[in-house]
Amino acid sequence: MPGTVQSIERAAAVLRLLAGGAGRLSLGEIARSLDLAKGTTHGILQTLRKVGFVEQDRASGQYQLGAAMLRLGTGYLDVNELRSRSINWADPLAARSGEAVRIGTVLEGQVLVVHHVFRPDDTFQTLDVGSLLPMHATALGKALLAYGATPPASLDRFTSRTVGTQRELAAALQVVRECGWSADIEELTPGEASIAAPIRAYGGLVVGAIGISGHVERLCDSRYHPRPQLVANVRDAARAVSRDLGAARR
Amino acid sequence: MPGTVQSIERAAAVLRLLAGGAGRLSLGEIARSLDLAKGTTHGILQTLRKVGFVEQDRASGQYQLGAAMLRLGTGYLDVNELRSRSINWADPLAARSGEAVRIGTVLEGQVLVVHHVFRPDDTFQTLDVGSLLPMHATALGKALLAYGATPPASLDRFTSRTVGTQRELAAALQVVRECGWSADIEELTPGEASIAAPIRAYGGLVVGAIGISGHVERLCDSRYHPRPQLVANVRDAARAVSRDLGAARR
Repeated sequence: MPGTVQSIERAAAVLRLLAGGAGRLSLGEIARSLDLAKGTTHGILQTLRKVGFVEQDRASGQYQLGAAMLRLGTGYLDVNELRSRSINWADPLAARSGEAVRIGTVLEGQVLVVHHVFRPDDTFQTLDVGSLLPMHATALGKALLAYGATPPASLDRFTSRTVGTQRELAAALQVVRECGWSADIEELTPGEASIAAPIRAYGGLVVGAIGISGHVERLCDSRYHPRPQLVANVRDAARAVSRDLGAARR
Repeated sequence: MPGTVQSIERAAAVLRLLAGGAGRLSLGEIARSLDLAKGTTHGILQTLRKVGFVEQDRASGQYQLGAAMLRLGTGYLDVNELRSRSINWADPLAARSGEAVRIGTVLEGQVLVVHHVFRPDDTFQTLDVGSLLPMHATALGKALLAYGATPPASLDRFTSRTVGTQRELAAALQVVRECGWSADIEELTPGEASIAAPIRAYGGLVVGAIGISGHVERLCDSRYHPRPQLVANVRDAARAVSRDLGAARR
């Protein structure tokens, strides 16, 4: 891309590296991972520290993401139109279906969860907002893939039912396009299923997906098919959000 | 700070501006707000777009924060030691006190909520993780201020009971230091109170605060004093987290 700023790209690479599960890293580790000179890396880290994007551990001298990143993440959620338009429809979907509801969008070949309504019961549940899900093994991901998202290069296998080849995936996505909704039946986690439908913005562009997830016996009938009433609930919610997104566009 | 990289500082300023409640902004608005040339601003925005930190609305051409920011925010939470060490103690504190528990740290003169356990009942509650609270009007903030955080320059008044002057605040913080815990009694929201205590890391440095919040009648006795049992619960939790943080330091 012409006119981009190299130091900003490098700073972004440092932040992504620190977010990538490694936790704390030393100056040397960061420089090596990104193939940068130590002096260059140090200048980037000092600047990121000054603006609060990274913090340096006093004892070890290692670097980690800073508190300002959490604030920017919340800022993304605050202005995210997909999320703000979906919230009103996610709660009724959870109430009607009795299942947990999640709304996802594409980030770097995965599904980023931008909203999560807990299943309406007292069981312990962990908030999934901000987590990433594999595209080919979730209903949310398949709804996004069917309408234009780039399929992942490697199809990791999570269960014996995970879609294993690009050919199988292409066939599954064709079915999604024909039906207008997607499902994952024990493809990511044994005993769990999910049902999703695409969310469209102005012009019909698919910008996200909304879906429910829960125990396979609750979501599917005795023949392992998603229950039609739940599919209808999910599709109704997706249509309602899409209508709101289209109407709201300036 | 010597050796910092100007373009990274400018990129950080753009991200903060977009997170600052304004939502979507045009190129011209961003350039004007940051007093930068349009060409410079465009290069920064193109780079931030390339790395997924900002998105451009197709219809309006306006810029907003991108999905990668949410992922980095989650990355901060994943590696945040204050949060990871606190989680085990926050749940029992919520169970013992029957109130919502929040853990906060300082960000830009405010309290950033890094963990939130809902009050253990069925009422509707909104997750506060990532939100900012005023320091002088919350128990969490006063616990942080009493042990070194910089007081805000202006003391916004939220209720008739909010601390209104720097002199009053200094006196209140002296009491916090003497007692080892802090309270806000209808100082942020009428009818609401909070109790907090500081969390210390290796070497005694205060790195955060843990506290409970809820209806003033539940947290306080008939004379408007925080109930001793709840204060003891909060202080026990703060000590437990501090012990874990100190012991865990490499």
